[in-house]
Amino acid sequence: GACDSSPKKQTLGHTSILFDEATIAQVDEAMSWPLFEQSVAEAKSFVEEQMALGIQVPVPKDLAGGYTHERHKLNYLSMQQAGKLFIITGEEKYAQYVKDLLMAYAELYPSLDRHPSRKSYSPGKFFWQCLNDANWLVYTSQAYDCIYDWMSEEERNIVESKLLRPQADFLSIETPQFFNRIHNHSTWANAGVGMLGLVIGDTLLVHRSLYGLEDDGLDTETTDNDGARIKNQERAGFLAQLDLLFSPDGFYAEGPYYQRYAIYPFVVFAASLQNAKPDQKIFEYRDGILGKAVYALVNLTDEEGEFFPINDAQKGMSYYSRELISAVNIAYHFAGQNPELLSIAQKQNTVLLDAAGMHVAKDIEAGMSQPFAHKSMELTDGTDGNSGGLGILRMKGETGSLSAVLKYTAQGMGHGHFDKLSLSVYQEGAEVLQDYGVARFVNIEQKDGGGYLSENQTFAKQTIAHNALVVNRQSHYTGSTELGSQYHSDRFFFDAGNEDIKIVSAKDAHAYEGIGQQRTIALIQDELFEKPILIDVLSVASESKNHYDLPYYYFGQLLSTTWENKIAETLRPLGESDGYQHLWMEAQGTASAGNSKITWMDRNQFYTLSTLSLEGDQMTLARTGANDPKFNLRRDPMVMISREDASTSFVSILEPHGSYSTVSELSQGASSQVQGLKILFESEEYIAIEWQHISGQTYRLAIAKSNNGQEESHQIKIENKLWDWKGSYSYIKI
Amino acid sequence: GACDSSPKKQTLGHTSILFDEATIAQVDEAMSWPLFEQSVAEAKSFVEEQMALGIQVPVPKDLAGGYTHERHKLNYLSMQQAGKLFIITGEEKYAQYVKDLLMAYAELYPSLDRHPSRKSYSPGKFFWQCLNDANWLVYTSQAYDCIYDWMSEEERNIVESKLLRPQADFLSIETPQFFNRIHNHSTWANAGVGMLGLVIGDTLLVHRSLYGLEDDGLDTETTDNDGARIKNQERAGFLAQLDLLFSPDGFYAEGPYYQRYAIYPFVVFAASLQNAKPDQKIFEYRDGILGKAVYALVNLTDEEGEFFPINDAQKGMSYYSRELISAVNIAYHFAGQNPELLSIAQKQNTVLLDAAGMHVAKDIEAGMSQPFAHKSMELTDGTDGNSGGLGILRMKGETGSLSAVLKYTAQGMGHGHFDKLSLSVYQEGAEVLQDYGVARFVNIEQKDGGGYLSENQTFAKQTIAHNALVVNRQSHYTGSTELGSQYHSDRFFFDAGNEDIKIVSAKDAHAYEGIGQQRTIALIQDELFEKPILIDVLSVASESKNHYDLPYYYFGQLLSTTWENKIAETLRPLGESDGYQHLWMEAQGTASAGNSKITWMDRNQFYTLSTLSLEGDQMTLARTGANDPKFNLRRDPMVMISREDASTSFVSILEPHGSYSTVSELSQGASSQVQGLKILFESEEYIAIEWQHISGQTYRLAIAKSNNGQEESHQIKIENKLWDWKGSYSYIKI
Ligand SMILES: [Ca+2]
Ligand SMILES: [Ca+2]
Ligand SMILES: [Ca+2]
Ligand SMILES: [Mg+2]
Ligand SMILES: [Mg+2]
Ligand SMILES: [Mg+2]
Ligand SMILES: [Mg+2]
Repeated sequence: GACDSSPKKQTLGHTSILFDEATIAQVDEAMSWPLFEQSVAEAKSFVEEQMALGIQVPVPKDLAGGYTHERHKLNYLSMQQAGKLFIITGEEKYAQYVKDLLMAYAELYPSLDRHPSRKSYSPGKFFWQCLNDANWLVYTSQAYDCIYDWMSEEERNIVESKLLRPQADFLSIETPQFFNRIHNHSTWANAGVGMLGLVIGDTLLVHRSLYGLEDDGLDTETTDNDGARIKNQERAGFLAQLDLLFSPDGFYAEGPYYQRYAIYPFVVFAASLQNAKPDQKIFEYRDGILGKAVYALVNLTDEEGEFFPINDAQKGMSYYSRELISAVNIAYHFAGQNPELLSIAQKQNTVLLDAAGMHVAKDIEAGMSQPFAHKSMELTDGTDGNSGGLGILRMKGETGSLSAVLKYTAQGMGHGHFDKLSLSVYQEGAEVLQDYGVARFVNIEQKDGGGYLSENQTFAKQTIAHNALVVNRQSHYTGSTELGSQYHSDRFFFDAGNEDIKIVSAKDAHAYEGIGQQRTIALIQDELFEKPILIDVLSVASESKNHYDLPYYYFGQLLSTTWENKIAETLRPLGESDGYQHLWMEAQGTASAGNSKITWMDRNQFYTLSTLSLEGDQMTLARTGANDPKFNLRRDPMVMISREDASTSFVSILEPHGSYSTVSELSQGASSQVQGLKILFESEEYIAIEWQHISGQTYRLAIAKSNNGQEESHQIKIENKLWDWKGSYSYIKI
Repeated sequence: GACDSSPKKQTLGHTSILFDEATIAQVDEAMSWPLFEQSVAEAKSFVEEQMALGIQVPVPKDLAGGYTHERHKLNYLSMQQAGKLFIITGEEKYAQYVKDLLMAYAELYPSLDRHPSRKSYSPGKFFWQCLNDANWLVYTSQAYDCIYDWMSEEERNIVESKLLRPQADFLSIETPQFFNRIHNHSTWANAGVGMLGLVIGDTLLVHRSLYGLEDDGLDTETTDNDGARIKNQERAGFLAQLDLLFSPDGFYAEGPYYQRYAIYPFVVFAASLQNAKPDQKIFEYRDGILGKAVYALVNLTDEEGEFFPINDAQKGMSYYSRELISAVNIAYHFAGQNPELLSIAQKQNTVLLDAAGMHVAKDIEAGMSQPFAHKSMELTDGTDGNSGGLGILRMKGETGSLSAVLKYTAQGMGHGHFDKLSLSVYQEGAEVLQDYGVARFVNIEQKDGGGYLSENQTFAKQTIAHNALVVNRQSHYTGSTELGSQYHSDRFFFDAGNEDIKIVSAKDAHAYEGIGQQRTIALIQDELFEKPILIDVLSVASESKNHYDLPYYYFGQLLSTTWENKIAETLRPLGESDGYQHLWMEAQGTASAGNSKITWMDRNQFYTLSTLSLEGDQMTLARTGANDPKFNLRRDPMVMISREDASTSFVSILEPHGSYSTVSELSQGASSQVQGLKILFESEEYIAIEWQHISGQTYRLAIAKSNNGQEESHQIKIENKLWDWKGSYSYIKI
């Protein structure tokens, strides 16, 4: 390195994965774009705080949350930022810091065996699992790219021969069960190996990353820590991940929480390829799948940008995460400059310190940002888009919005839940009917080192943990991921094209043997109701009598029920397996035939669930937390409708209403305005329901059960009058 | 009234309680002060929305939350605002609206008996209780004042003879048990009667309001709905309320929630007196007690302005309430122009439409506002300030603040809780160790008409519902309000004069017969701890062996305990009475001698309670909600230390630490840094404790138990070294 005291621009002596000469020439101007300038300042503050702590490369020992784990993680994060700061500012202290860390790692590395904790199917060197070691290589390759030209050839030889190449081989050749899968973990390994290959100009490493190991010797029966098969495909490598992990809509089988995690190596390796190997045209691959994946991801959020917590997902993860900052910046720069992405970047309030980030900061400064509008949409699941999907309905009312998510996807691999046709409901950024999410406290050492808790398997994955129908107190597919992976639910119809009704209907035929289910969810707005309401029609077909449980997990304070509750004087679990063992039975009552209602209050608002009861329906109030010796579960309430029957339908309306203020103590609209909910007609072809507003206004909804053709004509007779329509449903006011 | 089409200024033809000519002359200029202009616009929007609904004066029928109740309430609120708008804008439609309502009331009134619901000891005419009828008169007198000169003499005769005078007599002469008490309810009646008297120039009504009814014929044994005595003093009327309801510091015996409610008739009647009868010098009365009461109230809040929920208090009530807007405006205008009140008015974002509100808006516009800083302070309780008090400690650390409230007041009349020496803890606006508050959902009809729920008596008032020591599983004073009203706890010392330690110590000798308690709470900040910590030393003196329970009600997710928990396989209540019947026993364990710790996470932050255990201490994890057939209680967790002993001390440290992000998934500082907590020395005169930071730094705190003189010298010997100090405590680092 040069010893000039004045900082100066770098010139690139190698093919960089992050920068080109044009980008570097723009740096001075870029410092006048507020978001870029501020992002540089934040990076400086972070890196300088880390530099002040000195070079710490401890012998690996701890699990997540422990010192050595967190230190190695901070090391790769700060090396990456320091590298970029060196290019942008020309200040050698940053290059020196990266080099000192790399040298310390190079000295330690040869002495390391795999991590002493053997909890993973693939233990790493610096971390308990190779996954984190692959994270390290993805970030460290970027840092190395930045100081490559500044280092001497001897220094590069040491770092490459004693640290980087051995680590790339370790993560691939030496750990094929980690490298050669179709799985988000392997994407990280592919990206790390490929990015290093691009930086050092090793085409063999790049080829290995794109196409996988040719001969991995993997046994087809081995499973990982999640119980999933290692060898699930003949193909491997980055291109195979792009082909097989996403649906044509960019939906990722494990769901948005893992898609958020998975997206980073996809976009950062793709950006590296585009910079260093543009003839690969990676952003055009599979009809632009990378841009679609980012677009799917930002749409899989509530109005606060928090991901729908389907499958194993920790709540609170959002598009504010580091990975989404990269994904939004890179998708904007390399995949179509959608101006709505700029408004997300504004909320993120930071950009990447590279060409993509500069582009975003520049266009925001130029006033090109458009508000991001969450839209109703269906995202198909499966490599070919034929494995069901996720239906997202959104309706903006005058006093707030209502969103519903109906899940009719495939199983979602090892992190999938047994949640076919489950429903979750949101108002703006808040959960109204929740999906429990994962039973895990990521990186919180007190909770089993931050890993998956046993209650994730015994409760959170089970069907009863979801707003989904449970038959004979058993989870879908008898709780077998392997069985579940053979099937999926299917969209029946989806229509978000009208202002007053948005509707999705899906079917499942495999979750329970011999039982067919159809669930239709509609959001409806009408001037008589101050807020949109949700209609839930779940029809089940069975030749024999079964026990049905349909839970709704709400939040807040129960205000009233129309049925009489007998409260439990001692609390007992609801059952012994399939998640029932984790629910305390708080109260039970028997519904009369007609409309049963439960009203609760949450966030200073009222909610009523009105349901059509048959004589003898059991209504249960329960709460999570039984058989939970380590207090790993939250204590959340639910109400459950139970019925013994063969074929039957569950028809309910969820109605947000009114408001309360703890300051004025005024309560407004505290009572439900729905009445007269009933089934007008039901056959194997149709179900038609009716309800009223208390003013007497009557509403009707007919749903096709067997023919979903959009051009099909239907007719049924109600009270001797003909009701005919075209398409899969009809909504009318009479 | 005149029929000019152009609005014009009003001139006052009578002595107004709200306006004078100078204020009216200022109206045009006032419309240029943003806060005043905006407040006028809001009032217009509210009143015009109500006017659009037409004149509705229904025959009274419903309880709180029901139509007729809410309608009569909206009527008086909109009449008051419409009256003021008439004066300010000169638009006759507002005067006409008030007159139409008054005429409709005058037509209905003669036919009304007391309200058909007979749930109150004093049923009203328009509402189920006279209290709401008195509210009506306080607001309606203001409306009438505004249109008095605009109405014809015949119209005034109708309204006064058929409505207002009969209502004033109804609330006083005809209901002496309501009018002639020393109680916040009676203050409303005093104010309503007195304000009407001032408007119509009836000195007899004014005299009645200031001095009460001379001969009320009340029986000394009668009680109200809360079980409190009606006839509790020889004196009555507004001046007696000022003398007897507040301590010299302006603390109101029932606590801030009721003080907030009570303050409105105090300040609005006082402002009326000052305007119409300035020779009364009401704001100078009792050394300026009205200003002190407002100042006490704004200090009895967390950093979001929410009142500490001691006694019967619904959480979420704050200085944003309508009553506090009036109190802050009137206290600013009439009682000293404290510029910190302006910053609260800015947060309230609205002002009164009168001289007080104009003054506030004007001075804010002139840039005179100063930030309101919550301070540590003691507020004495009792008419003469000799009945204990409330100690409020506040400490601002670098990464957040910690506040503690130690309650050593008198009982607080019918709304008092059995909570001697109870503790509550806040961080900024959030509860860390909560006071449960009231078991009531004010104005929510589903919850018993919005009234007090039976669980308020059976749980929320009981000692076990508080962070307070329970002896032999019985509440203080055997749960008798009458017995409790004879005693109070006492401050032992209070010192908020240092930067590194703020401390309060109080004693109780009557809550349990033959048992003495001293509780000392200290907030301490030290550079080794990132946030302030709280020390809790509770010494109990008894000649015989007792069962002690010391609960701490926390919020959030339990992470770990150092003792082994045996979880309950079926949940049973903790006991059968005194509130224990409402707690589910979730888990129990036995502590070993030494330090026991429990760590939880709430709002993305960690908390550890470290306590000094004796061999055999029982640790219980419990949760509210048992024996709660209507789901009237929240489901909140607590941890409880239980010990069988005679004289003993409970020594604990509450330590907020670290942080967690669900977005970055980084956890920082997740482990407690307190160790080695122990009692160094204990005698009848002193207790001295020690603890360490994990780095080894040692801290010591000695507390005097029998002599609290500030100039007293003390010495004890620890490990053969002399420790001497002056004053009631000593805090040292060694
Ligand atoms: Ca298919
Ligand atoms: Ca949210
Ligand atoms: Ca608060
Ligand atoms: Mg996994
Ligand atoms: Mg789930
Ligand atoms: Mg009362
Ligand atoms: Mg209390």
